[in-house]
Amino acid sequence: MDQVYMKKAIALAKLGVGNTNPNPMVGALIIKDGKIIAEGYHAYYGGPHAEVNAFKNATASVEGATMYVTLEPCSHYGKTPPCANLIVEKGISKVVVGMMDPNPEVSGRGIALLEENNIEVVVLDMGEELLKLNEIFLKYIKTKKPFCILKTAMTLDGKIATKTGDSKWITNETSRKQVHQLRHQVMGIMVGVGTVIADDPSLTTRLEGSQVGLDPVRIILDTRGRIPLDAKVLTQASDAITIVATTHLMPDATKKAIKATGNRVVVLPLKDHHVDMASLIELLGEQGMDSILIEGGATLNYSALEAGIVDKVITYVAPKIFGGDLAKSPVGGEGISQVKEAILLEGLVTTICEGDIVIEGYIKKEGL
Amino acid sequence: MDQVYMKKAIALAKLGVGNTNPNPMVGALIIKDGKIIAEGYHAYYGGPHAEVNAFKNATASVEGATMYVTLEPCSHYGKTPPCANLIVEKGISKVVVGMMDPNPEVSGRGIALLEENNIEVVVLDMGEELLKLNEIFLKYIKTKKPFCILKTAMTLDGKIATKTGDSKWITNETSRKQVHQLRHQVMGIMVGVGTVIADDPSLTTRLEGSQVGLDPVRIILDTRGRIPLDAKVLTQASDAITIVATTHLMPDATKKAIKATGNRVVVLPLKDHHVDMASLIELLGEQGMDSILIEGGATLNYSALEAGIVDKVITYVAPKIFGGDLAKSPVGGEGISQVKEAILLEGLVTTICEGDIVIEGYIKKEGL
Repeated sequence: MDQVYMKKAIALAKLGVGNTNPNPMVGALIIKDGKIIAEGYHAYYGGPHAEVNAFKNATASVEGATMYVTLEPCSHYGKTPPCANLIVEKGISKVVVGMMDPNPEVSGRGIALLEENNIEVVVLDMGEELLKLNEIFLKYIKTKKPFCILKTAMTLDGKIATKTGDSKWITNETSRKQVHQLRHQVMGIMVGVGTVIADDPSLTTRLEGSQVGLDPVRIILDTRGRIPLDAKVLTQASDAITIVATTHLMPDATKKAIKATGNRVVVLPLKDHHVDMASLIELLGEQGMDSILIEGGATLNYSALEAGIVDKVITYVAPKIFGGDLAKSPVGGEGISQVKEAILLEGLVTTICEGDIVIEGYIKKEGL
Repeated sequence: MDQVYMKKAIALAKLGVGNTNPNPMVGALIIKDGKIIAEGYHAYYGGPHAEVNAFKNATASVEGATMYVTLEPCSHYGKTPPCANLIVEKGISKVVVGMMDPNPEVSGRGIALLEENNIEVVVLDMGEELLKLNEIFLKYIKTKKPFCILKTAMTLDGKIATKTGDSKWITNETSRKQVHQLRHQVMGIMVGVGTVIADDPSLTTRLEGSQVGLDPVRIILDTRGRIPLDAKVLTQASDAITIVATTHLMPDATKKAIKATGNRVVVLPLKDHHVDMASLIELLGEQGMDSILIEGGATLNYSALEAGIVDKVITYVAPKIFGGDLAKSPVGGEGISQVKEAILLEGLVTTICEGDIVIEGYIKKEGL
């Protein structure tokens, strides 16, 4: 039953998707006499942890009960008091943990505290499932750099637009809705200034019905300061700001004008005629950004891959063919010369989204 | 049980794959007292039909038995005597048919002959399964034109080679073996002369172990007569010839030299500076070719799609990224201008081949 209850706790954890960053999604269940007497999850950043919410929702006395929680209960004071202490206080007799805390500074401490108080602790092996649930958190807590997802959409013949640049739309409506869910899950979204000039996108999160979508911070790579000051990303109403990442090549007047729109400018080193991506990512991580969705054009996509900042690739393949020697494909730039130099992916998963094919995979990193 | 037995008959039919063209793959079972007493399939072109083989293999008297056969038994004299008559003679009391004969000239006649002889006939609805099994035969019998499969292999960023043209190999070994199975299944394989000049491929069928692979006829599109006379496709030992499809632009001396290698030259009209694909396909169909695998470069692939001769597309997507504005993608040529002009696919099926993703689909044809 352990696996079954833990899977239920994972499902609870997922209810917090997009709202807990840069903290993890966590779910918890309390079982007594074979019955679920409480459920809880971490609903939003800074809010009560899953364990606290489970205690709050309990429909019977939790004394002597078993708690299932997807992540090791915390033992440190953060935005909320430590959950391990609360579990002891409440008289829980057994805790089943889905995954140890990945933060090397505190990993194992919560479990130790529980065991010191004679609470039985079992750590399950949930395989890939919990690693995937927490992939953003795991990367961020270990490296302080954001988990970067490169999202592309292409035809079955590898085109992101026709030869004339028409790209509305490659994928179907349901796929495009999925992308808004993705935007909701991440803290930042990155595009090149070329995309802003060509398409003037909003880059907001538009979800359906009663769901509230959080807009990601928009990060525009603009080496020379070409961004139009009336671009939607600078002028629209949004609950997130836009960061224009540039270099010393941007005129001071442009910097001032961007700041006057209430948005930010960050000046970074120049590398290969572009904003240095690695420095940018480091900066964004330092400022608390745990995840970025890269929705660039072909040039930005290659720069990101070349800089080694991409962790995951999500490619939508639409069942259509454009043809055209001059039509662009998703990753441009200089490119590699020999097949053996290719950037490799692993852990591929393929799903179908109403006829579009969605391929997800992870960049294979050497030495990891 | 009808569906179960018919699925078994379909599995038998598949044993003939690649060897029956331009005739269909057919499988047959004979059931008596709930037991399979005979199995048979159409093993090779011109050989005994599935029904004949089933009678030959019977382990008990077939009188009063039920026969399951994937395709309506024939009622006409072809390379072999009609099976419907044989079924009557053998005293079979019931015939379950997977699909009516698609040839409008004879469809229903085999069933009528059986029913006139007081044999009960049931035609099952096997959905897509039998249509797919017989897709080559169905197209050819109705149109006298070959069923054309466009096969491409690309990276996850839509490249068929690096910027320098390196393409060995995009896909893994298992995927490349699958392509040899595909070559075995078709009667012809088509490439452009550019591929012959660049790669000097054999375009033979190399299968593993005891399997005997039939080489397809090689069709080389060579508008101007650029084919090197020492190309493998002209000089190698093979059980199939090479057809060089050209136009009036090929010098007579080249024609003679090709013929001297024991291969064929066919001269076709020029269309948009290339061999007219539609005329070529018509000619190949008239000469009994029911299926062609197009393994072209980007230019040929677009010409084939534009000419409307492609029925099915099989795309291998390898989990790697090349990048490069100058790296080619699978379909080149002029290409379309507006997204709404895209060539659409339907009936997509995705499978995984040791990490490579295989996407199969059918070109959506207007008015069909």
